[in-house]
Amino acid sequence: MFESAELGHKIDKDTYDKEVPALRAALLDAQLDMANLAQFPVIILVGGVDGAGRGETVNLLNEWMDPRYLQTHGMGDPSDEELDRPMMWRFWRELPPKGRTGIFLGSWYTWPIINRVQGRTKTADLDQSLERARRLETMLVDEGALILKFWMHLSRDKQEKRLKTLEKDPKTRWRVTERDWEHFQRYDKFRVVSESVIRHTSTAEAPWTIVEGYDSNYRSLTVGKIILDAIRTRLAAADKKITEISAPPPLPSIDNLDIIKKLDLSQKIDKKTYQAELEKYQGKLALLTRSPKFKNITVIAMFEGNDAAGKGGAIRRITGALDARYYNVIPIAAPTEEERAQPYLWRFWRYIPRRGRVTIFDRSWYGRVLVERVEKFCSEANWMRAYSEINDFEAQLVRHNIVVVKFWLAISKDEQLKRFKAREAIAFKHFKITSDDWRNREKWDEYETAVCDMMDRTSTEIAPWTLVEANDKNFARIKILKTLCEQIETMLNKKGIVIKKM
Amino acid sequence: MFESAELGHKIDKDTYDKEVPALRAALLDAQLDMANLAQFPVIILVGGVDGAGRGETVNLLNEWMDPRYLQTHGMGDPSDEELDRPMMWRFWRELPPKGRTGIFLGSWYTWPIINRVQGRTKTADLDQSLERARRLETMLVDEGALILKFWMHLSRDKQEKRLKTLEKDPKTRWRVTERDWEHFQRYDKFRVVSESVIRHTSTAEAPWTIVEGYDSNYRSLTVGKIILDAIRTRLAAADKKITEISAPPPLPSIDNLDIIKKLDLSQKIDKKTYQAELEKYQGKLALLTRSPKFKNITVIAMFEGNDAAGKGGAIRRITGALDARYYNVIPIAAPTEEERAQPYLWRFWRYIPRRGRVTIFDRSWYGRVLVERVEKFCSEANWMRAYSEINDFEAQLVRHNIVVVKFWLAISKDEQLKRFKAREAIAFKHFKITSDDWRNREKWDEYETAVCDMMDRTSTEIAPWTLVEANDKNFARIKILKTLCEQIETMLNKKGIVIKKM
Repeated sequence: MFESAELGHKIDKDTYDKEVPALRAALLDAQLDMANLAQFPVIILVGGVDGAGRGETVNLLNEWMDPRYLQTHGMGDPSDEELDRPMMWRFWRELPPKGRTGIFLGSWYTWPIINRVQGRTKTADLDQSLERARRLETMLVDEGALILKFWMHLSRDKQEKRLKTLEKDPKTRWRVTERDWEHFQRYDKFRVVSESVIRHTSTAEAPWTIVEGYDSNYRSLTVGKIILDAIRTRLAAADKKITEISAPPPLPSIDNLDIIKKLDLSQKIDKKTYQAELEKYQGKLALLTRSPKFKNITVIAMFEGNDAAGKGGAIRRITGALDARYYNVIPIAAPTEEERAQPYLWRFWRYIPRRGRVTIFDRSWYGRVLVERVEKFCSEANWMRAYSEINDFEAQLVRHNIVVVKFWLAISKDEQLKRFKAREAIAFKHFKITSDDWRNREKWDEYETAVCDMMDRTSTEIAPWTLVEANDKNFARIKILKTLCEQIETMLNKKGIVIKKM
Repeated sequence: MFESAELGHKIDKDTYDKEVPALRAALLDAQLDMANLAQFPVIILVGGVDGAGRGETVNLLNEWMDPRYLQTHGMGDPSDEELDRPMMWRFWRELPPKGRTGIFLGSWYTWPIINRVQGRTKTADLDQSLERARRLETMLVDEGALILKFWMHLSRDKQEKRLKTLEKDPKTRWRVTERDWEHFQRYDKFRVVSESVIRHTSTAEAPWTIVEGYDSNYRSLTVGKIILDAIRTRLAAADKKITEISAPPPLPSIDNLDIIKKLDLSQKIDKKTYQAELEKYQGKLALLTRSPKFKNITVIAMFEGNDAAGKGGAIRRITGALDARYYNVIPIAAPTEEERAQPYLWRFWRYIPRRGRVTIFDRSWYGRVLVERVEKFCSEANWMRAYSEINDFEAQLVRHNIVVVKFWLAISKDEQLKRFKAREAIAFKHFKITSDDWRNREKWDEYETAVCDMMDRTSTEIAPWTLVEANDKNFARIKILKTLCEQIETMLNKKGIVIKKM
């Protein structure tokens, strides 16, 4: 795989000096077109062998290109705020918005490779990381991103020679660290591991480009031209209509039986039991979230359900038991301008809390497969892929010791009508019914199909849905509190959750 | 000052139970009106004596109010990302947008008080902190915020009694820490210091409310009613037209002499000298920003100037010397939706970098006293107060070892015309001239007046402006690089800048 990058590629100074000005002008031009169009971001990952000119190339690109539309991120050691969240959070927070370019020096491949080379992980772990990286990139590409991955390569001899040359010159000596020499000792292992990484993650939509790094003229011109070409091609394609995928239809409801219809919505509890249970579970929740071990986990609770199913009331019964400093309720409405310039899941990633905290979403990332699907705000291709993107997202949360609790509050069509009318009758603006609510109601069956589909595709072992029979508000609230307590308790009892130092 | 809060206020259970439901409903109602109007945020600060029920009150407010429009921030120990920035950054990042409420448990008063009580600072330091707090609040109020400051008070006896009661009950024991008892030992000192703080910072627009904290019914009802009343009063006032202040006119230019006219724009350097100097200062900048001490400081360079004065080119000569991982260029354009929901300076605070980094603003927070003033995008009252707000902002940066370098690039009217025409002639879209540019040009004199005013009011000892004669691009670039190097060097040589551990 590295053969072409060990041929001794070289560009002489004259050719280089002749080509660079035109390339620079063309890059600036392409950046401006991208910025004006603001339709897609460019994500550039730069990895490779130490001494192969990763940093120099990135610095040069920054010289060539317009720094106003370009940002470089050196993904060094994570901050404490980053360590408190899933690994990918630090990349999500730095994703370039549409129209801009983000260069990542160090990427989601860096630590998986280093950990494998140093023997801290096994091949199976590496494979899992790569699978996750691949899925992330597929999602980004589906969201419109142009991803360019560069691997700067040097043969063993060339790497040694290069490190020695850098060390000899007082001007560049600072760039060679002990760590570089340590890495050099493991060159062969590093080569094997990175070859495998490149092989497994060179996908059609985001292939790696291996660039021989020894000659800086060759390296710089190659990288610059590829970037220019990729942006230009993409700009040209932007006018064309994207062919929609057409997925096989979801499970048809031929016997009129589904998980929603199966619910026993008549379940209720009397007021006295409710009061007792409420006190019991709120007390339990208070204790759980104040236990020292809670500092090591995170809770994300998420509410979906029919309109007027009682989400707000249920949320207040939870927050009533919590310390206000450690929770946050995020109502999901239409995305803001900054959110629209990013991939769909970005506006949820930004609210992932630090450890020791509870975040409650009032409506959620499931909007895409519910309202956006039914109201045709997005194409079938987009909501079909959302299922797996959401599963990936939740898997990342759970892997980071985040308790993900998902509630669907179900009420009957009759009960909804009763509540709508009651709300209209009291004319208390806080419970205003909008025309949207009535319109959604007309599509009851379509929503039900979407909900059943969603359950089938996203109620996973790691992040199961809890269906809540909510015709009786008291019954619903207790079920919710109880479920929440159980899931937090399970996570707290998980092996490996250690008490974090204060 | 605390006399009224030591009278033994008490509300019996019956009265309390009778009043609370109406209060809760009214609070929810007011929150919804606020959210719909989205005209102002509510900022609630809660401070006071340990054991006086600060946390309980905030939790109760969270129970009473709609958590979707309310967020509570426990301002405990700062994270490493927060420590890397000026102290106020952590408050700016949590400011509620218009229409929402933010409760801060712990505020910009907390550390100044604790430091003074524990003798780590002197009265003069405290006074300075208070002056800064007052100015911040004035600014927030001018930007439309409703600020409510609550001080929960307990007499010495009552505090002791309360801490002991809490300790006795196994359910509340966890809430009394050793630190609480330590603080109690210093009750008298704490009382004196906080009395002085309250006295100095009870302004007309953001007064403190001292609430006796012993009886929870009294405390909760009092706080709830004040919040409701303040929001309602403010909502009622929202319709009324705010009386504009009318400031005395700025220095008139009666002899047609000003600092811009005084500039010798004919200064130039030849190409050979330019090349040599460029290499010299870029090399110097590279070394300075790579020195170990640089990890402890931050650089913020800011460019303003006439249209076509060469800001972009000058910025690229700086970034060309920097490591791409450690700088960021922020082009300032129209604010986004999220930025418009915040005070004016918020969109600059969000880009304040961590230590060891360089951020370059292409146009800046001076937009308000330049384009917004001349084009009448904001009222005279608003741009008049911007001068002191900007000075406060920059003072905070400088106090945190941030080098603030401000460049004004000046070209003559003739030179601008030449550049505009040249740009139009090459028809290279990257240098497109917009109708805005021509329109601004028609207001040349008005802009000049605004610029001179700005210099007079914001070129401070700690953050002076550098006027750059930019008719000759080469001359300008060298002057900029040289100035930047000098200012960084001065900061690096400042006593007290220690090498931060890696």
